[in-house]
Amino acid sequence: MTRVTRRYRFAASHRLNSSGLSGQQNGELYGKCNNPYGHGHDYVLEVSVTGPLDAISGQVMNVAALDRLVQAQILRDFDHRYFNADVPEFLGDLVPTSENILRVIEDRLSAHWRDAFPDTGQRLEGIRLQETKRNRFELRTN
Amino acid sequence: MTRVTRRYRFAASHRLNSSGLSGQQNGELYGKCNNPYGHGHDYVLEVSVTGPLDAISGQVMNVAALDRLVQAQILRDFDHRYFNADVPEFLGDLVPTSENILRVIEDRLSAHWRDAFPDTGQRLEGIRLQETKRNRFELRTN
Amino acid sequence: MTRVTRRYRFAASHRLNSSGLSGQQNGELYGKCNNPYGHGHDYVLEVSVTGPLDAISGQVMNVAALDRLVQAQILRDFDHRYFNADVPEFLGDLVPTSENILRVIEDRLSAHWRDAFPDTGQRLEGIRLQETKRNRFELRTN
Repeated sequence: MTRVTRRYRFAASHRLNSSGLSGQQNGELYGKCNNPYGHGHDYVLEVSVTGPLDAISGQVMNVAALDRLVQAQILRDFDHRYFNADVPEFLGDLVPTSENILRVIEDRLSAHWRDAFPDTGQRLEGIRLQETKRNRFELRTN
Repeated sequence: MTRVTRRYRFAASHRLNSSGLSGQQNGELYGKCNNPYGHGHDYVLEVSVTGPLDAISGQVMNVAALDRLVQAQILRDFDHRYFNADVPEFLGDLVPTSENILRVIEDRLSAHWRDAFPDTGQRLEGIRLQETKRNRFELRTN
Repeated sequence: MTRVTRRYRFAASHRLNSSGLSGQQNGELYGKCNNPYGHGHDYVLEVSVTGPLDAISGQVMNVAALDRLVQAQILRDFDHRYFNADVPEFLGDLVPTSENILRVIEDRLSAHWRDAFPDTGQRLEGIRLQETKRNRFELRTN
């Protein structure tokens, strides 16, 4: 099986503060990521797709279709935004950690997957989010 | 199990044009990659090998043996070449997409694997081809 | 399942020379890595952890806890050291290849894992060591 991975970038800011914790607990848990006015990252998002290799095109998927999906569902809403105030999923209790951002990305891509790939075959295989050069987060979407 | 991955580079050009499609269809499917005179990439090729850890050498494989294999079977034929005219596998109907290039690489490495690793144990585990910073293609060779 | 990968760096030197081989055999097997006075690398170490996503914190693990573990068990002993003379595991017959260094790292992290993550859930999923831009070594710790 061939896996195709496409890489995107967006800049966004967030503040880590859980409504389930006291101010002191938030400070201890998140450290400087709990500072009141948020801080930004240049996120790198990688989306991996698997599928059968089309004998005519020699491709697993139409890359432009994935680009349109990611642009419409993710980059348009996330790029140059403050997660805590601009992205609906994070207006309540959900903390915009990279783990939770990954889940929101998965939900959004899955909900519109068949619009982008109506025929057959292509499957969202995994999502990877690099927050900084020192860490990255991966979700394997079986 | 320890996996060892070795990274190589080659520069090559290709044109994406399928004999199974009309001129208009090719243009729609491949976009600028269908431009008549081809275009080049600085490909990054990664070859992953697994095997038992040799107690004397402390190594999974002789790296020089893999380098010789990849040099003789892949880099010598691909580097600074135009896939569509220079590489035998692509002289017919096979379109030199990264997906198909990966398969050709797998076929060539597999065909000569036992010459490079005659004894036992070492297994070609996967091949990864990065075409640009924005995409990469992976083949897991079970 | 979400996987979190954290990246660390250390500079260290080593000489590849197996007590199970003659001088000539060592030269043939390891090439310039067998030169008598050793040589250095800027190693990149990646440690991957999986675990359940905590609903309050939105995180798979406390990153600071992993950083403290890796600092205490690995970086403090490895950084700016000569493996063959400074690191106890390599004072005997074990050759400090990247494969063997990975195993030592796994042993050290595993031995102190429950001190760093006493509660539940977090699991060491894999370790990756990049010796140079041309090669990397991975251990999947089931």
